[in-house]
Amino acid sequence: MEKNVMEAATKKSTAPAFIRADALLEHWQGHRRLSRRVIEAFPEDKLFTYSIGGMRPFSELALEMIHTAAPGLRGIVVDRWMTREEVNKSFPKPKSREELLQLWDRVTEQLNSLWPHLSEQRFNETVKVFGQYEGTVTWAILYFIDNEIHHRGQGYVYLRSLGIEPPFFWER
Amino acid sequence: MEKNVMEAATKKSTAPAFIRADALLEHWQGHRRLSRRVIEAFPEDKLFTYSIGGMRPFSELALEMIHTAAPGLRGIVVDRWMTREEVNKSFPKPKSREELLQLWDRVTEQLNSLWPHLSEQRFNETVKVFGQYEGTVTWAILYFIDNEIHHRGQGYVYLRSLGIEPPFFWER
Repeated sequence: MEKNVMEAATKKSTAPAFIRADALLEHWQGHRRLSRRVIEAFPEDKLFTYSIGGMRPFSELALEMIHTAAPGLRGIVVDRWMTREEVNKSFPKPKSREELLQLWDRVTEQLNSLWPHLSEQRFNETVKVFGQYEGTVTWAILYFIDNEIHHRGQGYVYLRSLGIEPPFFWER
Repeated sequence: MEKNVMEAATKKSTAPAFIRADALLEHWQGHRRLSRRVIEAFPEDKLFTYSIGGMRPFSELALEMIHTAAPGLRGIVVDRWMTREEVNKSFPKPKSREELLQLWDRVTEQLNSLWPHLSEQRFNETVKVFGQYEGTVTWAILYFIDNEIHHRGQGYVYLRSLGIEPPFFWER
């Protein structure tokens, strides 16, 4: 996955820094605040049932974001990956929007407390995310964020097709 | 828009570099290669006509990506912003998929040639994108990329609802 990015990042580039760790975390949390508002924008039943083209309902897309972000960043920091079962136990499938939002907010706290443990050296090291996907830490974290933006964009289509105006994309 | 990111980035952080300029360009172009495959995945008529919930067809979302990326990065580099009319003249509305892909590939070249003009100092400077949206250069470029991921995710829903399997998200 994204072999070129991996190579560019592992080469110990001396190119200008594009973004530093503190700003990147804030950027990520800004995206997460928007995704939280998308969860809130769904009528509660539609959150768990509505989809288009055989895709998953938004609650399941949001749970994927949760399962990726906190167990993912934890794996990177402690260098041990939770199994699928451990992830499901740690962040069990929510039965209501309120439960989903509680999981969401736990992830927010966890990301904030894990983040300071990362260094530029660690960003450039190669990891095997959940024992499966190999790339640099930078690549992995961008993948977590991009995957959230990707699925959240799909939630926007669900909302529009339900006649609901989604939150502004630029508000974080 | 994203006030916190702006502030974090303008504070002259000494935090570790998360990603450097060369890897970020490659990351962006990787996303653009995936978006190009999404354009190719649509049946040509559906590319220009199909939508859900009153949204724009994917050809128009792709044209927005084109209008943002090259005129946007050019504006950042030369510090002068094209008007809406100049942008439309430079990248006119395509009448076929082939024309759309040609515009797309022109943008690819332009980004590659503009990119080396950027420095870490420039990334931290504040710009008014298209004379309207104020933030750091880093914020603006992330916005361009995130907006593409967001709209491309919507294209995935269009494709799925047409019974078409989209390209793998992780292939760049």
